[in-house]
Amino acid sequence: MQLRKVKIVGTGKYLPKRTVTDEELDQKLGVQAGWTHKATGVGVRHYVSEGETASTMGAQAAQDALDAAGLTFADIDCLVCTSGTKEQPLPSTAVFIQQAMGQEDSGVPAFDIDATCLSFVVGLDTMSYLVAAGRYRYVLLVSTEIASAGLNWNEKESAALFGDGAAAVIIGASTSEESAGIIHTSLQTYSKGARYSEIQGGGTRLPAHMQKELADPFLFFMDGQKIFRMASRLLPDFIDQILEQSQTKMEDFKLVIPHQGSAMAMRLIRKKLGIHEQQFLDITPNHGNTIAASIPMGIHEAIVQGRIQRGDRILLMGTAAGLSLGGMVLDY
Amino acid sequence: MQLRKVKIVGTGKYLPKRTVTDEELDQKLGVQAGWTHKATGVGVRHYVSEGETASTMGAQAAQDALDAAGLTFADIDCLVCTSGTKEQPLPSTAVFIQQAMGQEDSGVPAFDIDATCLSFVVGLDTMSYLVAAGRYRYVLLVSTEIASAGLNWNEKESAALFGDGAAAVIIGASTSEESAGIIHTSLQTYSKGARYSEIQGGGTRLPAHMQKELADPFLFFMDGQKIFRMASRLLPDFIDQILEQSQTKMEDFKLVIPHQGSAMAMRLIRKKLGIHEQQFLDITPNHGNTIAASIPMGIHEAIVQGRIQRGDRILLMGTAAGLSLGGMVLDY
Repeated sequence: MQLRKVKIVGTGKYLPKRTVTDEELDQKLGVQAGWTHKATGVGVRHYVSEGETASTMGAQAAQDALDAAGLTFADIDCLVCTSGTKEQPLPSTAVFIQQAMGQEDSGVPAFDIDATCLSFVVGLDTMSYLVAAGRYRYVLLVSTEIASAGLNWNEKESAALFGDGAAAVIIGASTSEESAGIIHTSLQTYSKGARYSEIQGGGTRLPAHMQKELADPFLFFMDGQKIFRMASRLLPDFIDQILEQSQTKMEDFKLVIPHQGSAMAMRLIRKKLGIHEQQFLDITPNHGNTIAASIPMGIHEAIVQGRIQRGDRILLMGTAAGLSLGGMVLDY
Repeated sequence: MQLRKVKIVGTGKYLPKRTVTDEELDQKLGVQAGWTHKATGVGVRHYVSEGETASTMGAQAAQDALDAAGLTFADIDCLVCTSGTKEQPLPSTAVFIQQAMGQEDSGVPAFDIDATCLSFVVGLDTMSYLVAAGRYRYVLLVSTEIASAGLNWNEKESAALFGDGAAAVIIGASTSEESAGIIHTSLQTYSKGARYSEIQGGGTRLPAHMQKELADPFLFFMDGQKIFRMASRLLPDFIDQILEQSQTKMEDFKLVIPHQGSAMAMRLIRKKLGIHEQQFLDITPNHGNTIAASIPMGIHEAIVQGRIQRGDRILLMGTAAGLSLGGMVLDY
């Protein structure tokens, strides 16, 4: 039994000021009018502009989450950045978020957990054990992503899907009277799919100086078809096991919050898993795919829009570069 | 009370085949004979060559740890890469380690925890809660670093300190009859020092394509003096608190295993903290500073050299880019 008496006490979100419509992308990509909308169904995504960095966005989302929780930074015992991209290769992005929050003397431990698009789910899962054990009272999880910095505009299908932005979630212990808790989490990684979605260059294998000769491997690459095929083969059994182990039926979920990979893939997976449309959160039309920020943005939107109330059971699920699968059953 | 009944069940290490002596570096750096040895006291460090990557080194260290523990990969429930550098910006390095171990269909969850040089300590601390709670039976932690890919040869002092290599540690639950356990951990991050040690370029703030105009920010930068000054101001109180909270006196430790930052800084800190030379592990002379791999390499060497036995109390400690301080009291 994996139950952890941990609850979400506050959430926050930040979207960059600059909006980019499907029509603008049609022009940028040099495609026929309507192509981007048909291919992505996004409508509007946001890209950072002057003055917006991963850490400033993360800090604003985090402040929003503190306000929602009625807490201040002094209540936070640990700050974990759960993003798929980094502000710098070194040090951890959490450090820069702490600094952007004006807390550079706070001493609050700050580090990163990276499971690409599932970083938030893995961070929430992992850190919930430290909260449940009383090690940390409140943990601040921040996912902040600038996809637009690494897109390959020659790869139209993938380039058009993404948006930038940040989301933050604060967790704390729930009392014995509260129903809130994490019921069950499952994570699986199949590195057979390691190269279906990747940025090859910029780590220790293809160091930065090689960018001069090899520009493309330093940009994001995604084989959407291969990911979709592998994910749809593995997800049904994976989700069945989660339902069985959490003793939940799909219809018990007030809401399923998927990683907002692509609207089309989400729709197909939803049908394959027998999830009703009203149970399924789709925020791609005004966000796009915001990498690891997409699930916590979904949680934030679900709360703000009143789609979930305290006591509701929800399912977080998604796939990530790796290829990884992740699912979490939690009572909000 | 933070006690977790978790023990180290096996450790492993991998050093690249190519050795680089202080004399070779004198030539490469264009300095007087003897300069590198005087500045670093390293003697020999290792650099990767053809065929050695972060993931292949990590896989070999991991296999070594499995052998030492009498386990196979099938016993591992979770693989966490705890490095300060990445093989690629995306996906996580743990994915590539899983693949390099020939386990690409295993489904074993694989993700990264990054707290720069303290990644291993943070990973061990964090994942110990999941082992103690029974979520995972055995967790494989791998730190694998290729410092040589990002050194700035114009920054002689820092360039000469580092070496490449990998270390792996497997943790599992200890029984009630066993004394092994993690007694206390403390982490603190002061982002005032965020820029004392960094690689600015290659993340979302200075994307890869800017390397054409700005080569230097894509290489490692370290202001050793500022780090040393901040660390020596903060460490005495930090360590005092750890001793107090774990009800331990410095002389109770069989061994102190510090992050092998630089031999000179380690010696000064050792004296400042009142640690006897015999209690203090210094493996810089044949390793250099191997970033986050340095502490698990230290644990591995301490075990292999017979400097610690089951039941011995040890202290892991260090600083990391961030600037972060970390300390862990554990009974081996």
